[in-house]
Amino acid sequence: MAMAEITVAPLGTGSPSVSKYVAECHKVLQQTEGIKFQLTAMGTIIEGDLDKIFDTIKRLHEVPFDAGAQRVMTIVRLDDRRDKEISIEGKVRSVEDKL
Amino acid sequence: MAMAEITVAPLGTGSPSVSKYVAECHKVLQQTEGIKFQLTAMGTIIEGDLDKIFDTIKRLHEVPFDAGAQRVMTIVRLDDRRDKEISIEGKVRSVEDKL
Amino acid sequence: MAMAEITVAPLGTGSPSVSKYVAECHKVLQQTEGIKFQLTAMGTIIEGDLDKIFDTIKRLHEVPFDAGAQRVMTIVRLDDRRDKEISIEGKVRSVEDKL
Amino acid sequence: MAMAEITVAPLGTGSPSVSKYVAECHKVLQQTEGIKFQLTAMGTIIEGDLDKIFDTIKRLHEVPFDAGAQRVMTIVRLDDRRDKEISIEGKVRSVEDKL
Repeated sequence: MAMAEITVAPLGTGSPSVSKYVAECHKVLQQTEGIKFQLTAMGTIIEGDLDKIFDTIKRLHEVPFDAGAQRVMTIVRLDDRRDKEISIEGKVRSVEDKL
Repeated sequence: MAMAEITVAPLGTGSPSVSKYVAECHKVLQQTEGIKFQLTAMGTIIEGDLDKIFDTIKRLHEVPFDAGAQRVMTIVRLDDRRDKEISIEGKVRSVEDKL
Repeated sequence: MAMAEITVAPLGTGSPSVSKYVAECHKVLQQTEGIKFQLTAMGTIIEGDLDKIFDTIKRLHEVPFDAGAQRVMTIVRLDDRRDKEISIEGKVRSVEDKL
Repeated sequence: MAMAEITVAPLGTGSPSVSKYVAECHKVLQQTEGIKFQLTAMGTIIEGDLDKIFDTIKRLHEVPFDAGAQRVMTIVRLDDRRDKEISIEGKVRSVEDKL
């Protein structure tokens, strides 16, 4: 299990609002089996098998194009740890336990 | 009011765990007036006045050095919108309202 | 043709130096057909077909693990423009022409 | 001496092209003393004293607003190593020496 944060930003859409595109991405995520996901104010965090994460990133990157965008900047940060299992809740808890 | 996501990653620490450094960053955040912050599994989201955000990023960037790290990669994504007010809760709600 | 910048950062290695891992990544890139790539001081820029770019990112993400790392943070920024062709040289030239 | 890569992306402009904004950023950089900078196809790399780097990031973040943008996403990756001196040329050479 790995984790990724993805932010999909369409450029040149004429409006500074991007929530419409993010909502479309989340419709795709809701129909994707085998991953957990969490919306944050700065992107979406995905937890799952590494191949599944890459497939999901590819699909989300297409979403703004399907909605009419001509240019998309997709920002991904992948966190992959192989000495122990990581999870969205586990990583947050690990910090909170130290506070 | 602007928003930033910050991830502070020490390199070469000898252990793949970084939660200790993140917890130290959050101790600094708890003592910082004038910002809101939220811990996520992939970083920390900060909301506040733009100058305050930059000051906070500078302080957080020093935290792993103070804890002994020799190299720090700090990743920042700043979201600044001046046609309307943005907030951590408002951005998430704006997407959820469309779902 | 799309473009991506990729930075592969192993966490928890005993040394703050990462050039060894970057060099291993570039050995993989030298053997990869169908892409152009450029080393910068902050990462590697890849130009090519979108599927090829994703395949390459997946392969590069494995490189530090193959070299013994236990945790890898891979940072990707994808720039995909479909109203006109983009290239590594073209993008730089477009800015320089305006200076 | 530290190093940062900065990408300033205006959102909601009517055109997918951003080279105009990047060129304006480089006019600011040309007038900034005490830093080295390099344009790449995916951003701008800045080398200098840490405080100078932060000041420069703050100034570049304003450039698209001055040019009429209403929302700006600024992406920064800071690489700060304190066990040895780093430089734009040195980091690239260090990888090339291993190839």
